[in-house]
Amino acid sequence: MNTLINHQFRLATRPIGLPKRSNWSYVEEPVREPADGQFVIQVQYISLDPAMRGWMDQRRSYIPPVGIGEVMRAFAAGRVINSRNSRFAEGDYVTGLFGVQQYALSDGTHVTKVDPRVVPLPVYLGTLGMPGMTAYFGLLDIGRPKPGETVVVSAAAGAVGSVVGQIAKIKQCRAVGIAGGPQKCQYLVKQLGFDAAIDYKSEDVTAALSKHCPKRIDVYFDNVGGDILEAVLTQINLHARIVICGGISQYNNTTPIKGPSNYMSLLVNRASMIGMLVMDNAERFKEAAPEMAGWMASGKLKSREDVVEGFENFPETLLKLFTGENFGKLVLKVGNAP
Amino acid sequence: MNTLINHQFRLATRPIGLPKRSNWSYVEEPVREPADGQFVIQVQYISLDPAMRGWMDQRRSYIPPVGIGEVMRAFAAGRVINSRNSRFAEGDYVTGLFGVQQYALSDGTHVTKVDPRVVPLPVYLGTLGMPGMTAYFGLLDIGRPKPGETVVVSAAAGAVGSVVGQIAKIKQCRAVGIAGGPQKCQYLVKQLGFDAAIDYKSEDVTAALSKHCPKRIDVYFDNVGGDILEAVLTQINLHARIVICGGISQYNNTTPIKGPSNYMSLLVNRASMIGMLVMDNAERFKEAAPEMAGWMASGKLKSREDVVEGFENFPETLLKLFTGENFGKLVLKVGNAP
Repeated sequence: MNTLINHQFRLATRPIGLPKRSNWSYVEEPVREPADGQFVIQVQYISLDPAMRGWMDQRRSYIPPVGIGEVMRAFAAGRVINSRNSRFAEGDYVTGLFGVQQYALSDGTHVTKVDPRVVPLPVYLGTLGMPGMTAYFGLLDIGRPKPGETVVVSAAAGAVGSVVGQIAKIKQCRAVGIAGGPQKCQYLVKQLGFDAAIDYKSEDVTAALSKHCPKRIDVYFDNVGGDILEAVLTQINLHARIVICGGISQYNNTTPIKGPSNYMSLLVNRASMIGMLVMDNAERFKEAAPEMAGWMASGKLKSREDVVEGFENFPETLLKLFTGENFGKLVLKVGNAP
Repeated sequence: MNTLINHQFRLATRPIGLPKRSNWSYVEEPVREPADGQFVIQVQYISLDPAMRGWMDQRRSYIPPVGIGEVMRAFAAGRVINSRNSRFAEGDYVTGLFGVQQYALSDGTHVTKVDPRVVPLPVYLGTLGMPGMTAYFGLLDIGRPKPGETVVVSAAAGAVGSVVGQIAKIKQCRAVGIAGGPQKCQYLVKQLGFDAAIDYKSEDVTAALSKHCPKRIDVYFDNVGGDILEAVLTQINLHARIVICGGISQYNNTTPIKGPSNYMSLLVNRASMIGMLVMDNAERFKEAAPEMAGWMASGKLKSREDVVEGFENFPETLLKLFTGENFGKLVLKVGNAP
């Protein structure tokens, strides 16, 4: 082990607006020997998620910010290569919060064993990972869709949104996705079975929602905030449920965030806007995961990953989330896989 | 009856910003004879409520707007003076949507009999009327306060807010009111038993909330929107409930409404923002009214009315709601009472 070198991206400075290369320090250090109860993971895929942007800011949130000088927090998947923990053996595949680095040391806290013979490793970071769980609990517990209702989701071609729309279809709802560009919109309708897709880059979202949601909107799963949230608020039904899962359109703002100026639509429609966080449901992942895996096996739930190669490309790859360039769950392939 | 003359305020034009005298036409017409099943009410008190501003606008809402040329919609209390309806007799006191006029014709729909020997008539337009019911159902059903929690209410010296704070105390919560001016703030703490009051006209609301809500905010009952809603969002607890009852700070805007730019606090705190409308609970008023009357009788729930005399003063009196000049439930005494 002594000869193994670990490369890491550590947070050097806090970004203003979009993260720049200068916000990161690229650090090299030897891989440490596991102490009793610990094990070493060779990281193979790093999950790039919108939430990471929030973790870089110094402000009160649901989790402490990443400290300056600390390894950037990230979900990842890899293989155990050295273990002094009886629950994890060499050769086991695992997912967990391993950080943006090539090797991680863990005591097993919040680490999940996965099987790459069932689905490829990146899927455990997407549809069968946190994004999938986010979609599952956000839509079913907070959105509470009933058959025949209309469910709208933004960032619909993304890791969370694509699962939201597909579960809405499984639950016999009308599913309308909002995404950027014709390619993503076609994918939603033709590959994933959405009833309609709206290209926010080329269409008037309010008009398109009117057209594609003739019975108005009962559930809106919001990943983006901003103008799209406002447009949806003009079209909600009585007792509509708005799930606030993310607000990626505002994450890199250097000017004040745009709040929904028509939030009083909540009063007019006696509707609710409810924030959700996937980790609050951690105890129930074990009930959701088999159901999701079953839907995948039967073809009702499809998954798409956008795999970028090369650990050193982390800073630029992360930005794809904020420009909307990724298509499917964005993961970084570390490239030291055997 | 033929000799009785009815005066009315009808909507002449839709206001831009604060309603002006020119938005109203003052009309005189003879009081009509009741047809079979109808009765005539001599209106004694007209309720002036913030919601009336919304009813003047041409836009989709929970109720159709008042049409141009129609008598302005308003709750009111009065006495039956002529009846061809077996359920309502001459001399009965009643409340209902009688409009801004001196005499109203009704078939009994949504009309409630009241007893001015128990409490004065204006109280049936305030604490034992729609504002009281709004406070009761909004706080208890949507806010769901638990003993020991902190409840914050804006427009706290108003007809709804004052009841919200007092019910919060009855339910063993910490009650913090936000109101304009030292007189109202003293009234909240000294007369109504609020734990603290914040004068938004002279204090930094965010700092004052920090000081008076040491365990942060569990329930916020919002009557005002705007900057105060934003300030509260910085201080909410995990799983906080925000009841959207009104947004009076924004009702007369001629510029776009200010949405809460920090609504993502809902996500961080897994909190909810839920719109409510009192009329959705109409079937349950008969369970709430006796409980509220009981609290009043035992001195736990106090009521204050701001009675302005003179029917002809309606246009100017309504504006007191938007300048915050009223102190207690604003009612207009029609002045033709015997």
